[in-house]
Amino acid sequence: MPASNRHLKPRLRLKAGNTIALGPGKIQLLEEIQQQRSISAAARAMKMSYRRAWLLVDTMNTCFRDPLVTTATGGSKGGGAELSPTGRQVLELYHRYMETISQCDELDELSALLSATDSPSS
Amino acid sequence: MPASNRHLKPRLRLKAGNTIALGPGKIQLLEEIQQQRSISAAARAMKMSYRRAWLLVDTMNTCFRDPLVTTATGGSKGGGAELSPTGRQVLELYHRYMETISQCDELDELSALLSATDSPSS
Repeated sequence: MPASNRHLKPRLRLKAGNTIALGPGKIQLLEEIQQQRSISAAARAMKMSYRRAWLLVDTMNTCFRDPLVTTATGGSKGGGAELSPTGRQVLELYHRYMETISQCDELDELSALLSATDSPSS
Repeated sequence: MPASNRHLKPRLRLKAGNTIALGPGKIQLLEEIQQQRSISAAARAMKMSYRRAWLLVDTMNTCFRDPLVTTATGGSKGGGAELSPTGRQVLELYHRYMETISQCDELDELSALLSATDSPSS
């Protein structure tokens, strides 16, 4: 197994009250929407139902001051979707935050206490 | 609802390879074991089966260089449990790490983008 096993990797969720406003899945969904410019294409890319993708988008849109994802209904191509300026800002800030917390001394100190042998996969 | 809704709260898991070495549940379990000096009492306090508590302890013990929880078998009081020096160190480092990541600028900037109204509970 790779040496990355010897370093702890943070997995982060951000809660607003009882709601998970952002987490790895929601962030990946935002990235897919940015690329695919469609919620249904993003859902397919993530092997997720459209309904579930829509609910995740709706949660994010409600948590934040401005919707992170905007949709265009109708038009020749049907409804496309894209990240709003706030959506792009949230994505950028989340990635910067992940970088910052991945470089904390405490994480290195905790990682130094890991066992030298492979972790179980449980 | 309290103003805390207006600030994002990080929820952190630390992965060693594919294994979640530490997370909110495991940390709480370590704290209960430290207080109760018994895995079964800690499990009861967390309304968790003894089996599940034991599995969580086993995962942590395997992930780290030294066991975080040591158990004494037999004796007049049956088997008690306590945190090893490494266990106490991990607990302390995790809490310091949580404090550090709760005070990052990026988190404040993300929180400033939250909606002013209450989050849904979904």
